[in-house]
Amino acid sequence: MSLLVTGTIGIDSVYTPRSGHREQVLGGSGTYFSAAASFYAPVRLVAVVGEDFPDEFRQILRGFEGIDLRGLETRAGSKTFRWGGKYLDDMDHRETLFTELNVLGEDPPSVPDEYQDSQILFLANSHPGVQLGMLDQVGAPMLSVADTMDLWIESERGLLDDLLRRVDGLVLNFDEAEQLTGHANTVAAARHILEMGPKFCVVKKGEHGCIMAHGDGICALPAYPAEHVVDPTGAGDSFAGGMMGYLASRLASGELSDPMDFDELRHALAHGTIMASFNIESFGLDRLASLTRVEIADRFDEYGRMMRLG
Amino acid sequence: MSLLVTGTIGIDSVYTPRSGHREQVLGGSGTYFSAAASFYAPVRLVAVVGEDFPDEFRQILRGFEGIDLRGLETRAGSKTFRWGGKYLDDMDHRETLFTELNVLGEDPPSVPDEYQDSQILFLANSHPGVQLGMLDQVGAPMLSVADTMDLWIESERGLLDDLLRRVDGLVLNFDEAEQLTGHANTVAAARHILEMGPKFCVVKKGEHGCIMAHGDGICALPAYPAEHVVDPTGAGDSFAGGMMGYLASRLASGELSDPMDFDELRHALAHGTIMASFNIESFGLDRLASLTRVEIADRFDEYGRMMRLG
Repeated sequence: MSLLVTGTIGIDSVYTPRSGHREQVLGGSGTYFSAAASFYAPVRLVAVVGEDFPDEFRQILRGFEGIDLRGLETRAGSKTFRWGGKYLDDMDHRETLFTELNVLGEDPPSVPDEYQDSQILFLANSHPGVQLGMLDQVGAPMLSVADTMDLWIESERGLLDDLLRRVDGLVLNFDEAEQLTGHANTVAAARHILEMGPKFCVVKKGEHGCIMAHGDGICALPAYPAEHVVDPTGAGDSFAGGMMGYLASRLASGELSDPMDFDELRHALAHGTIMASFNIESFGLDRLASLTRVEIADRFDEYGRMMRLG
Repeated sequence: MSLLVTGTIGIDSVYTPRSGHREQVLGGSGTYFSAAASFYAPVRLVAVVGEDFPDEFRQILRGFEGIDLRGLETRAGSKTFRWGGKYLDDMDHRETLFTELNVLGEDPPSVPDEYQDSQILFLANSHPGVQLGMLDQVGAPMLSVADTMDLWIESERGLLDDLLRRVDGLVLNFDEAEQLTGHANTVAAARHILEMGPKFCVVKKGEHGCIMAHGDGICALPAYPAEHVVDPTGAGDSFAGGMMGYLASRLASGELSDPMDFDELRHALAHGTIMASFNIESFGLDRLASLTRVEIADRFDEYGRMMRLG
C-alpha cells in the first residue's frame, strides 16, 4: 500500500534558548515526514534539491531503509532550500531568521511514472497550486491528506479552497485553523473545516496535543509529556509521518479497508504523537536515525496506559 | 470518608464575547467545587458570606443534596464577596473588572468542631496564611490538596512555601506553575514542584487539559473537546471538585486505601475534566444544577473511548 509524500528538503540552522544551536542540519517537511513514516511503511519521497546538496545528507536519508529516493530530484545549477529559525523561550513559538527558497522558487519536482499508482498521498505544506499539481499527477489515491500554512491562507485562498474540495483530510496548526475559519475555539474551527471539503481535519497544538474533527466524532489527544525538548523543528511533519505511515501499514496488512475510519484515525494520531515526541529530542534527524521499532512500541504502550480509563 | 473544602462564595458578574453576560450570579471557588464534588460524595463547605447573601443563592446551594452547609457562616454586618470579569475572545483569558473583597477581607470562617475529623481536605485558592490556618484546624487528614494563584506566588512566597511543605497535593494553572518554578516547560515545572513538598502536582491548562507530576510518573490528559463554551468561570474549581469528589467516593467505597495512588489520581483527573466540561456549558451553576449522574457516566465513557488505544 504505497505511501507518497511531496515536501521540502532543506538545510536548516536552528537556534534554541536552552539547548544551544546547530547550523546546516538536514531538515524540511519531506525529510521529517519520510523519516517518521519509514518506521511503519515504505515511503516514496518526491522532492527537489540543488546540486549543492551535501552527500552526507543524502547518506542520512539512505540510512532510513523505508525511504524510496527515486523521486528525489537533484537539479543542476540550482541551490538547495535553506531556512534559519530561532525558538522563543516557550519552545512552542519561533522567529524565522532567514528563508532562501532557491530551488523551491523554481518549477516543482515531478511525480515519477512509477509512483503514479500510489494509494496514499501526503501533500506537505507548499503553495496550494503546487499541491494541486501533485494531486493531478497521482491517479486515484485511496487517501489524500494535505498540510498548509498561514501564508497560503492569506495569499492563495482561492487555490486553497480548490485543494480543500479535493483532499480527504487536512492537517494544520491551531492558529492556522482559526485564521482559516474565524473560530477561536479549536473544536469549532476543525468542525467548520469539514464543511469546506475534507472528511477529517487534524489540528496540531504543539505541546498541547491535537484535535481531530471527523463525521463520526471529535477526538482530542494530549502530546506525550516531554520534559526535555531539544529542537521542535519538524515536530508537525514527523507527526504527520507517523500518522500516515501507520495508516499505510494498516492498509498493507489487510486489516483495514477504510483509511478514513474514525477509530483507525485516532490510533494514527497517537502514532503521530509518539513520532513527534521522539523527533523533538534532538536537532535534525539525529533521534529518528537512532530510533528502533521497540522504542516506538514501548512509548506507544506507555502513552496508551497514561490515558486508559476504567 | 468526609471531604471538606474551604473556599469562597461570591456574587459574580460575567461578560463574554459570544454568549452574552450575566450579572449577580452565584459564584466562588467553594461554590463550584462543592457543586461538582457533591455528585460523587458528601462535601462539607467552609465559607463565609455577608448578611446580603440572597436567599435565592442559598436555595441553589441547598439544591445540591450532597453539600453540607453547616460550615457556611453568614456574618452580620458584612457584605458578600463580589467579582466581575470579562472573557477575551479565546475564552481562555479574562480581565478582572472589579473585586470587592468585603467579608473576605475580614477574619476567615472557622472549621466547625464537627468537621474536624474530615479525612480529605481541599484548600481552594486564598491567602496561604488562611490556608495554613484551615489546615491547622483539621486534625490529620488522609489527603490534603491546595490551590493557589499568581498573587500569592508573588506576594506571600514564604507562607506559600510553608504550605507546600505541608500539603500532599497542589493544583494550579500552567502560568502559575511557570511563575512558581521558572520553568516554561509545564512538565518540568510540575516535576520541580514535587521538590517543594507536594507528592503530586496537577497543572491545569484550560482548553488544553491538564498534566500531573507524581513520584510514579507523569500523566497528561486533554480537555473534553467542547465546542460551545458559554462561561469558563469556575472551570478550575469544578475540575478540582470532580477530582477530589471521585477520590472521596473511592475511599468511602473501601476499594481504595491510598488516595495518592497514581492510577487513582489519573482517574480523578478524568472526572475533574468531565465536571469542568459540564460547568462551562452555562453561566453560574445552571448546568451543574440540572446535571444527572447518568450524564456524567455517559460523558466519562465517551471521554475514555476517545483516548483508548489498542
